[in-house]
Amino acid sequence: MYYIGIDIGGMTIKGGLTDENGKFYAKKAIDTKPEREYPEIVKDIAELCKDLAASAGVDISEVAAVGMGIPGTIDSAKGVITYSNNINFEKVPIVKEFRKYIDVPTRISNDANVAALGEARFGSGKGSKDVVFVTLGTGVGTGIIVNGVLLEGKGGAGAEGGHTCLKIGGEPCSCGKRGCWEAYASATALIRQTTRAMEKNPSSLMHKFAAEEGKVSGKTAFLAAKAGDKAGQAVVDAYVKYVAEGIISMVNLFRPDCVLIGGGVSNEGDYFMKRVQRRVNRFSYGGKRNPRVEVRKAELKNDAGILGAVALCL
Amino acid sequence: MYYIGIDIGGMTIKGGLTDENGKFYAKKAIDTKPEREYPEIVKDIAELCKDLAASAGVDISEVAAVGMGIPGTIDSAKGVITYSNNINFEKVPIVKEFRKYIDVPTRISNDANVAALGEARFGSGKGSKDVVFVTLGTGVGTGIIVNGVLLEGKGGAGAEGGHTCLKIGGEPCSCGKRGCWEAYASATALIRQTTRAMEKNPSSLMHKFAAEEGKVSGKTAFLAAKAGDKAGQAVVDAYVKYVAEGIISMVNLFRPDCVLIGGGVSNEGDYFMKRVQRRVNRFSYGGKRNPRVEVRKAELKNDAGILGAVALCL
Repeated sequence: MYYIGIDIGGMTIKGGLTDENGKFYAKKAIDTKPEREYPEIVKDIAELCKDLAASAGVDISEVAAVGMGIPGTIDSAKGVITYSNNINFEKVPIVKEFRKYIDVPTRISNDANVAALGEARFGSGKGSKDVVFVTLGTGVGTGIIVNGVLLEGKGGAGAEGGHTCLKIGGEPCSCGKRGCWEAYASATALIRQTTRAMEKNPSSLMHKFAAEEGKVSGKTAFLAAKAGDKAGQAVVDAYVKYVAEGIISMVNLFRPDCVLIGGGVSNEGDYFMKRVQRRVNRFSYGGKRNPRVEVRKAELKNDAGILGAVALCL
Repeated sequence: MYYIGIDIGGMTIKGGLTDENGKFYAKKAIDTKPEREYPEIVKDIAELCKDLAASAGVDISEVAAVGMGIPGTIDSAKGVITYSNNINFEKVPIVKEFRKYIDVPTRISNDANVAALGEARFGSGKGSKDVVFVTLGTGVGTGIIVNGVLLEGKGGAGAEGGHTCLKIGGEPCSCGKRGCWEAYASATALIRQTTRAMEKNPSSLMHKFAAEEGKVSGKTAFLAAKAGDKAGQAVVDAYVKYVAEGIISMVNLFRPDCVLIGGGVSNEGDYFMKRVQRRVNRFSYGGKRNPRVEVRKAELKNDAGILGAVALCL
């Protein structure tokens, strides 16, 4: 059978047609144009599905199901987008609307959840039934799989691991609370930490690397640290602790088979990943008496959303 | 059918024979004598089961299953106690050993997990499929039920919510890490916070209440606060924040139907519970757009362990 996975983003909607093994037969993307009313966007998604089927030479009746990953709070049981941060979606009955055009079983979930499912089914978590997926990007997104099933919570409002506490009363977070993990471990937070350290250390190599890139980015402190810069190393040391500490909280709660890290920072390689792994090994509850949890880089990258949306249907 | 629930503690082993509705037909307790080798303790547990059946006038063959709640890390899938903090149990194949005496299906899990299951099935979480249970005692224990199933994690090493982070690098915790929720929200932590505040405030009413009780306890600051003592109120205010902040992390991850609080502090009534509820309402992710999570007092008290062990069998 064939499946269609749709990855809805604020700028782009990506779609893919695959089989149950995640093998692609077609892949396409369209602009979201998020300022539009939802029926127009949904109509475009249905067109995208038909295009995918056509270019794979598959009749739409051969598509067993369609899955969609959507940013925001998604009530998957009801097939409704409760609200979305990036797109003008509020209380949108997307499944019902979509099936006006293509009447196949249609599953939806939050984009981080869906990416987690994709990694667990087809990516670096393949073969694992219990997976915690963490994206370190603009925010900290988490997708959690327990016994092979997505943890979604009431109304799809769970799995918001980015908003677990890291430092009570600490840095303000976009959610209105202070001290969330996201306020310390997101790429946004890393850039803020880097900028602060640069102000205090005018001779740090971070200034050189930021000038070369034309901006302070999530790479700046890593580049300086790898070149032996003390101030850069201090930023990376602290950031490793922030990331690891939040992962340890997840490990203590879920004790999954593995924790997968996605997002730009995961490209820092062993320099980053191995140090996070060491802290997780050392400080997770029960130490060596409890099963070790491997921290791995997520591997599906841009396809995680599409393949996760397919996995929603399986 | 009949079921037997066994609640194994460091001092006492309690047992009860009930039906599937949690109605008691017999209840008994024996001393654990935890210094003994495990086969002796298991033999006593089997005797306890036979006694329970006898005093209920039930033949042991009418008992459908036996459940046990045990402190420590429990590998429920294997029926093995990995290790226990309070009893001399390490790698104990308790299910196999027990079935030498009474060969019925036997289920085991961690005591906080089992208590959570008891509250969800028969107590203040009755009718809920998604429950987070928190005990504020010597430590902070958590039991988590997702879609009606206990969250146990690999090797039973999950659901250690007491060791999620509250303040990175903060107070040392018994687990070897710093800043765990348990190091701020346990009754032990509250007593430490009270003692520190008393040292700084020699005229606080906390001294009077501690003298009356003969010791500083988890009640001292609450008694003083309720009597209008400023220093006592400051202790309670901070403690409410610590408890609520950890609950908010749980809500953001699990978004359960309800959070149940057990342990001595839950007896402080509305003065405590309503203030925790207000913070949870205000700071949980998504605010009013997301489903509200009710914070309730656990109600089964001493029977939670036995009834939870029965619920393990259902």
